[in-house]
Amino acid sequence: MSLLETINAPCDLRGLSAEQLDQLSDEIRSFLIHNVSQTGGHLGPNLGVVELTIALHRVFDSPRDPIIFDTGHQSYVHKILTGRRNLFPTLKQRGGLSGYPSRAESEHDWVENQHASASLSYADGLAKAFRLRGEKHTVAAVIGDGALTGGMAWEALNNIAAAKDLPVVIVVNDNGRSYTPTVGAIANHLTTLRTDPRYEQVLDLVRRGVTRTPLVGSAAYELLHGVKTGLKDVLAPQGMFADLGMKYVGPIDGHDEQAVERALQQAKHFGGPVLVHVITQKGKGFPAAENNVEDQFHTVGKIDEITGAPLAGPKGRSWTDVFGEELVRLGRRDDRLVAITAAMLYPTGLHRFAEVFPDRTFDVGIAEQHAVTSAAGLAMGGLHPVFGVYATFLNRAFDQVLMDVAMHRLGVTFVLDRAGVTGNDGASHNGMWDLSMLQLVPGLQLAAPRDATRLRRALARAITVDDAPTVLRYSKESVPADIDPVDVIDGLDLLYRSGPRSDLYRVDLHEPHRTEQAAEDVLVVGYGAMVPTALAVGRRLADQGVAVSVIDPVWALPVNPALVDLAARHQLVITIEDNGVVGGCGSRLAQELNNSGRPTPIRNFGIPQKFLEHGGRAELLADLGLSGQEIARAALEQLLGRSQPLTAEDVLVKQQRDA
Amino acid sequence: MSLLETINAPCDLRGLSAEQLDQLSDEIRSFLIHNVSQTGGHLGPNLGVVELTIALHRVFDSPRDPIIFDTGHQSYVHKILTGRRNLFPTLKQRGGLSGYPSRAESEHDWVENQHASASLSYADGLAKAFRLRGEKHTVAAVIGDGALTGGMAWEALNNIAAAKDLPVVIVVNDNGRSYTPTVGAIANHLTTLRTDPRYEQVLDLVRRGVTRTPLVGSAAYELLHGVKTGLKDVLAPQGMFADLGMKYVGPIDGHDEQAVERALQQAKHFGGPVLVHVITQKGKGFPAAENNVEDQFHTVGKIDEITGAPLAGPKGRSWTDVFGEELVRLGRRDDRLVAITAAMLYPTGLHRFAEVFPDRTFDVGIAEQHAVTSAAGLAMGGLHPVFGVYATFLNRAFDQVLMDVAMHRLGVTFVLDRAGVTGNDGASHNGMWDLSMLQLVPGLQLAAPRDATRLRRALARAITVDDAPTVLRYSKESVPADIDPVDVIDGLDLLYRSGPRSDLYRVDLHEPHRTEQAAEDVLVVGYGAMVPTALAVGRRLADQGVAVSVIDPVWALPVNPALVDLAARHQLVITIEDNGVVGGCGSRLAQELNNSGRPTPIRNFGIPQKFLEHGGRAELLADLGLSGQEIARAALEQLLGRSQPLTAEDVLVKQQRDA
Repeated sequence: MSLLETINAPCDLRGLSAEQLDQLSDEIRSFLIHNVSQTGGHLGPNLGVVELTIALHRVFDSPRDPIIFDTGHQSYVHKILTGRRNLFPTLKQRGGLSGYPSRAESEHDWVENQHASASLSYADGLAKAFRLRGEKHTVAAVIGDGALTGGMAWEALNNIAAAKDLPVVIVVNDNGRSYTPTVGAIANHLTTLRTDPRYEQVLDLVRRGVTRTPLVGSAAYELLHGVKTGLKDVLAPQGMFADLGMKYVGPIDGHDEQAVERALQQAKHFGGPVLVHVITQKGKGFPAAENNVEDQFHTVGKIDEITGAPLAGPKGRSWTDVFGEELVRLGRRDDRLVAITAAMLYPTGLHRFAEVFPDRTFDVGIAEQHAVTSAAGLAMGGLHPVFGVYATFLNRAFDQVLMDVAMHRLGVTFVLDRAGVTGNDGASHNGMWDLSMLQLVPGLQLAAPRDATRLRRALARAITVDDAPTVLRYSKESVPADIDPVDVIDGLDLLYRSGPRSDLYRVDLHEPHRTEQAAEDVLVVGYGAMVPTALAVGRRLADQGVAVSVIDPVWALPVNPALVDLAARHQLVITIEDNGVVGGCGSRLAQELNNSGRPTPIRNFGIPQKFLEHGGRAELLADLGLSGQEIARAALEQLLGRSQPLTAEDVLVKQQRDA
Repeated sequence: MSLLETINAPCDLRGLSAEQLDQLSDEIRSFLIHNVSQTGGHLGPNLGVVELTIALHRVFDSPRDPIIFDTGHQSYVHKILTGRRNLFPTLKQRGGLSGYPSRAESEHDWVENQHASASLSYADGLAKAFRLRGEKHTVAAVIGDGALTGGMAWEALNNIAAAKDLPVVIVVNDNGRSYTPTVGAIANHLTTLRTDPRYEQVLDLVRRGVTRTPLVGSAAYELLHGVKTGLKDVLAPQGMFADLGMKYVGPIDGHDEQAVERALQQAKHFGGPVLVHVITQKGKGFPAAENNVEDQFHTVGKIDEITGAPLAGPKGRSWTDVFGEELVRLGRRDDRLVAITAAMLYPTGLHRFAEVFPDRTFDVGIAEQHAVTSAAGLAMGGLHPVFGVYATFLNRAFDQVLMDVAMHRLGVTFVLDRAGVTGNDGASHNGMWDLSMLQLVPGLQLAAPRDATRLRRALARAITVDDAPTVLRYSKESVPADIDPVDVIDGLDLLYRSGPRSDLYRVDLHEPHRTEQAAEDVLVVGYGAMVPTALAVGRRLADQGVAVSVIDPVWALPVNPALVDLAARHQLVITIEDNGVVGGCGSRLAQELNNSGRPTPIRNFGIPQKFLEHGGRAELLADLGLSGQEIARAALEQLLGRSQPLTAEDVLVKQQRDA
């Protein structure tokens, strides 16, 4: 029986010897590599925090002492140690283990998956609540050096450091990386530190037992701190933290479990806020990950557990690839074009641009706010910036898009990757907010291309707009084959038009007063990734004898007046978008119809306004009823004036009766 | 002729002697006090930056060297020096001088009014654009110590400091305050510095000429920097900035124009990013402001220019007052209640709560992101936080409301002050986004109370909700007298119902198929501050013989199903809200009607989706057609099926014909 099999709760870690802890670390690494290679997941980050997580659970009394993982993708070891080992074969699958902390799974998970840099603010609030309620818990927050580039973390540090007696232990898990190496002045300083030969001396000092004496209380802590202070000047970013009044312990070798444990004990006993600086290696113990230059296996699909080679067959071309290549092509022609990423050079496809135009590429760290407003500055200075970002992360910079770009009428292009249901990473990663949020931004122009040709054209057009924000959005999936229009009407792509209306429904379907002016029965409007669904709806309705057209406006904003005019000439309009249904493109079209005095029956299909469980994209869309079949059925029901769901039998009976 | 009258452009400052510059500072202060006391405006901050602004314009070559003012309310002196002196009698009035930088006013204004902490990101982008284009300009950004508590500023610092050759001069205007004293660890450190007796020695050293030698180039700069470094340890937050690799000059007496000028010259000639730390006094030179404990006249209405006493008669009770008092009352009964402010204790009315419950009040600095997520932490720890914030500033934390509060199903109450058109502060301060943005947040509950009684009730209810975010929003205006309902229908306040429908419009008004089911002609739904307008619309329509009801749902979210049912029984629904019309409450009601299969003609009235010019609230609302008369006219037009605007004469002719 392996040691790992005996660990079903943090208390099971308590009696283990140093040798046993080393063995446990090895077993956990093997377990992670074996399991995650079969399911896919955040392998690299979790291999880096094995010893750290063991130490956290030996020092803190979870769940009474909350342990909060920033962003949350590095919580696999935490899950293993808190009784969820057996669920790993279901990792990130629908109904299975979440890839992030999840309160539904365990009382040890206080905070679920988040966007980066939020953990310190949670810790601040929790610790203040405990203090007010007279409860003596310590809050531990584990944050990567990458997440320290996010301003939210600094807002929290400014508050935590000022609360001298607040029992918060901030563990900086310094692996030098976000996806790619962490950028900016703070990271530069940490790099200086780690490449300094004296760093080894400090580690040696720690190993030889300077900190082995059990230390209790702040007086003893201060003594130790004094000892270490002599070494600090070139070795640690103490100046910064000292200025903030924050106690600092480090640097600690994050793969020496006992060293980490001692540092955490000291920090815990101090009683006030302490920052523990732990140096780890992403992908530790898996050579394929350690040696991966792109992202050290930040996240993987199914891979060979020995070689790390991807096991899935060749995937289709991704939207990301098409965008990345096209931007390089455009960049050669237009030297005003510059690229911005918030620590996601590869995932957004901007690495291609960076390779060709390193001086024209800016990685700003996990700092979406700064990304947007520095883009505004670049535009003001005569350039045209393109900010590639996951759709859900643009929420962090809504105010900057609105005030700093749109209000200043600046030409910044936002390219939103992973728009719509992304699925396996759970609620925080679905890009289901942007189409609604961006409706509010005056002057903003937004395209949801349906295929590679439309993406290239939209990008080429977007970068010519120098007086307003432009946005493209596309999904995580492969790009479908091109879907060419059968006609183009005032800038609207007509993708399908059925034959003339069948007689079957004439009496039932049409309100008499509208029939005079209505040209057709149903207009189906599909946006971006939902265009194939819109086509399926159109064909199904046509099969039922409904006169139907299917339109892709491509540019959803500003709303094309021709779309409003066309919609007003129909009995029923169906809109389908890969976005929260509230306030999205469909809602906007309805509002334009209403406020122009041409109210028209319209049904908006999209993601219901709720947080989705994790699962595959196709599974989730099916669950949500976003299929051609379901939408066509709903449209027919409305045409027939049914308030109850229509069965297939009803349709048959009706056809027979009318025949 | 005064010296000030000879200054019409920055170049006019160049030839002045030290004595003349002192005289000019005095004249500018007198000018500010005399003018702003008559118009109202941001008096305190501008009195503090007189010498600093003169020095900036003597050292930098504006507009070639952009000077960017963070937030922008401290740009009055800049306006005076750039040819806009004569416009001050029109300050903040419609068509007059903006209270913030404005690109329409002057080529010297690169960045217009913003939310706090954005200036450094603009500077970073501008400087990078200049470098790429081979243009040799320096960018100067002036940021208050208060705005340094915003995380966005740290994101920018992390990037600027890492770009060693980027010509950016960051001037930290350290007056120790946002509105109230700046909070947090950084501010504590600055306070330590300024209360240290050696600070005076440094100032003395500076005054005696240690830095008087003209210095050109980075070698000379480094020399001086070395001299000053000997004094730094307890005197400056250099550790922090040194760790970032950022050059630091300071502290400088910000009211010694020549000292500031020398420091800026050095910084400019260095060529890379430099931080210049300038200490100023808010309200300098106006005793009434200097001695004001609340906010040192951060912003004033019309005041006596000698005593500083407010000149306006007693205003009506504000929403802020009602909220502030009620929260204290509720806080006495419920010790789980805690309050959070982002550096706006007085403007949000939370000072009352802070006076009674200092331990239960948290001022987090200008850090809306941290405010929201630390509130989530407080809620997780068993408390009920109430975050008082201006509506427009909540945009900064949309992602945190969505992910960290709503997704975690936590009970945090947001109280949005200054919702709707606020007017005089211009586009960035209108609270016209929240009703649309917050529609997207799953589970969120939102009330727009119409009067003090409804505000108190909504607050009492909001603080009992512990599993979802709750929001109240109200305007800057005085609270109107209570408007009691004539009936309450399933939680909807019926405020007005006309007599039975007149025969006049029967044939014309109603689509035959709808008449069977429609109970009444028109339903008017008013939200919050627009309820009096909704009542005016209802009465005007009733005067025209239209059967009309006026409803205030009070709780706009979740949408009350009874409201949808009621709306579906009308010929026409009119919604009126003090918010951008796109995606707001009216749009949502239309969507609920459509998606429940009961399409109903609806017209949404609100603020058009554009950035408004500054002006009085009443003026702006009238300009936008948000009056009872205009809305009633539009409703009548739609009822009569007119596509052309209806004149008063049309109505008369029609009445005569039908009679």
